[in-house]
Amino acid sequence: MLGKEMLNKFTFKMKKIQLFFIALMLPMLAAAQTIKSPDGKVSLTFSLTGNGVPTYSMTYKNKAVIKPSHLGLELAKNKHASKGFKETDLMDGFTVADTKTSTFDETWKPVWGETSTIRNNYNEMAVTLNQESSNRNIIIRFRVYDYGMGLRYEFPQQKDLNYFIIKDEHTQFAMTGDHKAWWLPGDYDTQEYETVTSKLSQIRGLMKSAVTENSSQTTFSPTGVQTALQMKTDDGLYINIHEAACVDYSTMSLNLDDKNMVFESWLTPDAEGMKGYMQTPCKSPWRTVMVSDDARDMLSCKLTLNLNEPCALSDVSWIHPVKYCGVWWEMIVGRNSWSYTNDLPSVRLGVTDYSKCKPNGTHGANNAEVKKYIDFAAKNGLNEVLVEGWNEGWEDWAGNSKFDVFDFVTPYPDFDIKMLNDYAHSKGVKLLMHHETSSSAINYERHMEDAFNLMNKYGYDAVKTGYVGDIIPRGEHHYGQFMNNHYLYNVKMAAKHHIMVNAHEATRPTGLCRTYPNLVGNESARGTEYEAFGGSNPDHTVVLPFTRLQGGPMDYTPGIFETQLKTWSKNTSYVHTTLCGQLALYLVMYSPLQMAADLPEHYEKYDDAFQFIRDVAVDWSDSKYLEAEPGDYITVARKAKGTDNWFIGGKCDENGHKSTIKLDFLEKGKKYACTVYADAKNADYEKNPKAYVITKKAVKKGDVLKIDEARGGGFAVSVIKL
Amino acid sequence: MLGKEMLNKFTFKMKKIQLFFIALMLPMLAAAQTIKSPDGKVSLTFSLTGNGVPTYSMTYKNKAVIKPSHLGLELAKNKHASKGFKETDLMDGFTVADTKTSTFDETWKPVWGETSTIRNNYNEMAVTLNQESSNRNIIIRFRVYDYGMGLRYEFPQQKDLNYFIIKDEHTQFAMTGDHKAWWLPGDYDTQEYETVTSKLSQIRGLMKSAVTENSSQTTFSPTGVQTALQMKTDDGLYINIHEAACVDYSTMSLNLDDKNMVFESWLTPDAEGMKGYMQTPCKSPWRTVMVSDDARDMLSCKLTLNLNEPCALSDVSWIHPVKYCGVWWEMIVGRNSWSYTNDLPSVRLGVTDYSKCKPNGTHGANNAEVKKYIDFAAKNGLNEVLVEGWNEGWEDWAGNSKFDVFDFVTPYPDFDIKMLNDYAHSKGVKLLMHHETSSSAINYERHMEDAFNLMNKYGYDAVKTGYVGDIIPRGEHHYGQFMNNHYLYNVKMAAKHHIMVNAHEATRPTGLCRTYPNLVGNESARGTEYEAFGGSNPDHTVVLPFTRLQGGPMDYTPGIFETQLKTWSKNTSYVHTTLCGQLALYLVMYSPLQMAADLPEHYEKYDDAFQFIRDVAVDWSDSKYLEAEPGDYITVARKAKGTDNWFIGGKCDENGHKSTIKLDFLEKGKKYACTVYADAKNADYEKNPKAYVITKKAVKKGDVLKIDEARGGGFAVSVIKL
Repeated sequence: MLGKEMLNKFTFKMKKIQLFFIALMLPMLAAAQTIKSPDGKVSLTFSLTGNGVPTYSMTYKNKAVIKPSHLGLELAKNKHASKGFKETDLMDGFTVADTKTSTFDETWKPVWGETSTIRNNYNEMAVTLNQESSNRNIIIRFRVYDYGMGLRYEFPQQKDLNYFIIKDEHTQFAMTGDHKAWWLPGDYDTQEYETVTSKLSQIRGLMKSAVTENSSQTTFSPTGVQTALQMKTDDGLYINIHEAACVDYSTMSLNLDDKNMVFESWLTPDAEGMKGYMQTPCKSPWRTVMVSDDARDMLSCKLTLNLNEPCALSDVSWIHPVKYCGVWWEMIVGRNSWSYTNDLPSVRLGVTDYSKCKPNGTHGANNAEVKKYIDFAAKNGLNEVLVEGWNEGWEDWAGNSKFDVFDFVTPYPDFDIKMLNDYAHSKGVKLLMHHETSSSAINYERHMEDAFNLMNKYGYDAVKTGYVGDIIPRGEHHYGQFMNNHYLYNVKMAAKHHIMVNAHEATRPTGLCRTYPNLVGNESARGTEYEAFGGSNPDHTVVLPFTRLQGGPMDYTPGIFETQLKTWSKNTSYVHTTLCGQLALYLVMYSPLQMAADLPEHYEKYDDAFQFIRDVAVDWSDSKYLEAEPGDYITVARKAKGTDNWFIGGKCDENGHKSTIKLDFLEKGKKYACTVYADAKNADYEKNPKAYVITKKAVKKGDVLKIDEARGGGFAVSVIKL
Repeated sequence: MLGKEMLNKFTFKMKKIQLFFIALMLPMLAAAQTIKSPDGKVSLTFSLTGNGVPTYSMTYKNKAVIKPSHLGLELAKNKHASKGFKETDLMDGFTVADTKTSTFDETWKPVWGETSTIRNNYNEMAVTLNQESSNRNIIIRFRVYDYGMGLRYEFPQQKDLNYFIIKDEHTQFAMTGDHKAWWLPGDYDTQEYETVTSKLSQIRGLMKSAVTENSSQTTFSPTGVQTALQMKTDDGLYINIHEAACVDYSTMSLNLDDKNMVFESWLTPDAEGMKGYMQTPCKSPWRTVMVSDDARDMLSCKLTLNLNEPCALSDVSWIHPVKYCGVWWEMIVGRNSWSYTNDLPSVRLGVTDYSKCKPNGTHGANNAEVKKYIDFAAKNGLNEVLVEGWNEGWEDWAGNSKFDVFDFVTPYPDFDIKMLNDYAHSKGVKLLMHHETSSSAINYERHMEDAFNLMNKYGYDAVKTGYVGDIIPRGEHHYGQFMNNHYLYNVKMAAKHHIMVNAHEATRPTGLCRTYPNLVGNESARGTEYEAFGGSNPDHTVVLPFTRLQGGPMDYTPGIFETQLKTWSKNTSYVHTTLCGQLALYLVMYSPLQMAADLPEHYEKYDDAFQFIRDVAVDWSDSKYLEAEPGDYITVARKAKGTDNWFIGGKCDENGHKSTIKLDFLEKGKKYACTVYADAKNADYEKNPKAYVITKKAVKKGDVLKIDEARGGGFAVSVIKL
């Protein structure tokens, strides 16, 4: 379209720019370069090996953590580009053009969190690499922390690198041995698997049985696993591989070369098998390795959050932690239904006249039921009430790859949206919106603005989204670049409307809640609902904080008191914890969004135990991990934000645990009223789950609590300053 | 989720319904059933053959047109459905459960069109077929017109057919011989090929050379061709195969079994290779066969429009025909650019600061240039001015598979959107909006509401959309179900904002403009722009009315007077018509949207010829096709709506044509001022394109005009009642 003269001018100009760059980037000696963490314990070395292949290794207290591992990206030919377009990989042929090191130390305040301040202290090395054959430069940036490191690829805008397609990212993590690992099968569409605990060498053999059925699932390799991957070496090192700040990029899994014990990044493909469409300037997410010889550091270290960008929202006054209940568990166990009628084999929005359908009599989200939950929330100091199944479309919502499954604005005839919101507000409670999308993402985007406007109109300030089933656009996956961008689009659109988001079945979080603190929750793992689908292993919630929670909070929906579902429904599953184990989850599974998930009548039955849920905070000024071992036990003490009160929780696996808690974090010279909610001596998650003992006493700094956790049990303690 | 009791009740109820159906549908004798057109010339026979395979055949004046041909659909297993879901094909094993015949005769008024009224007169036969093995029923509905027939599949909602996936549609059209055909290579992404004229048996051999390069193209078979497919038999029958009312379905091409001369429907696949996701009740588009022994009937018969649903818009007062000019051809030929700057190898919306970029000096959509076109439009009675390249993002818009290429609301610094609209309105002219999407459909949907709001704010009432390049969501095609739904979503959203749509690179139309008359134009074929890309064959515009225009008007953008582009630009292409050939297009290529596409200064040079473009109407109360032969010539007379004036156009191929026009359609006893714009004796589209003669005389009913058309020439006549 340009005249030839114009093109010549343009080319001339670019040549000048190019010469300028070459002058700047006289290749430096490619000797190994090392940076250390601020405390000197973690050391990272970078070099070019072989034919100019970027290579790094990492040690902790002089012990190898990551053996020399290659870095690089394989690019795809752009089939969408004009003919003659050439593409070369960014794998080798590099020379070091520049290396910059720097130090960073800053303390920042999260809008909500486990602590009121977070220190972000690292040493950085940014290596500019020149690939002469392609006339391209990339930067590999390393940040080394006391408990690990992050590395990422950066692609500056330049004449010969403006658009490119990632065919595969080949970031390696070479292990030093056949470590013990807590892993989930790698999958492009679900994270709702049970964690398998095994040696790395056993993954291949255990994979098949680890892949249980899900409404959307796409495994990719017999040695493919998800992040965050928690490992433990034979000599007691804890290593965790994950990613941070996954933006405009597909989610990473890890594929294990189990001959050499080398993990490699494995990105989620799009409908055409490509892994990412990139425009410079751009960067990859951070690839992170956390390491310590103390398991507690895996939980307290805020590496993932620190590697994310600061808060992007100018006004965060409307974001707040939420304790909620809701019309949910009664449907999950099968006693009630999301759908309104059984008259129709399928429905059409705007065509089906629900006012003429016979109600099925099991629809949960009806006015009376919702009012019951509102009353319960108001009485017990819960902020919000989630209502699922409030809107038209649930009769055929799943398993049909239906495009226009919901419009997110049309209530069923028996859900009076105005009356119920007015009623809730009159009692100081809010309703919590539910947007199940059936993974029809485009349909959701078409209705999103209207849906948020409806929420604003009626006074909702939080939405639980859902992505059950296979994605539309068909061929896309839950964790691909397209959907990752969709989830973030949703969070940004919600922020404009001052709405908090709790996204279920969305991609596993990578710390984006630092940048967008209205992303108050995610599911992205096997939540409490699985306790109604056959149950989760008792160790589940002493693994998740090491894995799933590395990227951000989980809406785990704890608090099931009537753990034997058959006592009140036709569901034969049971919850794989004791009642006290459920209480412990409000501490062990950190989240600014906590549900009291059981039915009001069950809480009324065990009101003395429910007192803990009434009391427990959901936002913290400090957190101290007192005891921790992946898959065995976690004990944590948290100080409620804006108070001098502490809450302590302990959770264990099927082997029980004897916890010893030194109250040395209390203020000296002050007295505290301590209430201990503990498993009774004969408590057992299978045989006697609801046996608990509540003990009250005064405590002071230095006192020691000894609490026994039953099989599949736990405890909760409130320590209120007098 | 339902209790078992509930499920049992539901099943019981469905069984009762089923028994009821079976009682109704006692199989009838499967003898052949025949219906005829109202005039008895077209006859259609349906029967079940072999193992219950639906089969039809068709005759015209007792001559076979379609030999016995099978009907049916192959279904895919729903990989998205719950396990255990079974799927059976709808191909055979049928019995006839019911046959209903009826007659329909109605005259309706299009909002705009070639005639002020259209008669829709057909005999119908609806055959209900029962597939016992699957407990499913479908209906095949036939409508037989005097000039052809339509058939479609209907899928009633029923217990065992609620959702299904089409793997392939197997609708056959068995030809009686090796007909002559005017065909385009079948393609999922472009229709911008030259028409090839050949015997059916020659398609395979000519396919490779017929597939010329396009920015997005996906051919699928060496004997795959597009519809509308115009054919002519050795004994002088004209046959045309197309489709009507393609809604929530993918676009059909035809694949030829060239041993047996049997065409079969070939649907456009989605990213996973599936052809359609269906929910009952639903129906396929109509598959149409037009037939006559007079080529003019192919052009005047309104079969495609008649098979579409009536107007769905309650208010159509804001829809109007448009004659327009615009900032377009100067970019197409390469003299000016859509982009604003050459500074940047790529840009980012909201990040790139254009106010700091150096203007390239070639940006067409600048204030001064746009004002020039507004002045020209105002002076010459043109309604609107199209401006392409007005908005940020053109620097890297094509070939990069870029997601967020445009936001459709941000003008370049040198395009003052308020001032220019105000200026245009002050002169009685409107600007015509341009939304190039780069085929990033999701990005367009995200911005669509804002984009239409901007149009409403500034007073635009029409938009030209564009879908250049490969589709995002990646893997989808221009003519798949997903994009077809997108185009219609766009038209419906536009209607809400009282905006007319002219969609370029969208799927070929199938008469939907009857239902949504704000769809005033489509491209969907090789438009005038190709005259600047090497040219189109001189017979192009005497083929298109038989093929592309069957489904609806084309925004062909005629009116190029300076046909030798090198005389005023660096472009070495030339327009493959004479100047009078260009004038003829305003009649021969019917559209309610007609552009005067050349530059104002070129029209000023040939102002006497431009008078015809000033005069010619764009909406008609009557149209009479006087002469026609596909690929050779078309002569048509049209009566301007609301007047007694007629305009006549004749266009021919590279062989010239001698036209004889009997003015017997004029009103008896009245006098008319007739102006003839004809090729000069020595005119020739290659050697002497601008040689024309303008003759004025008085005419009356019964007079005869004899006009010679040059090679690649044509003529235009205005007949104004005195």
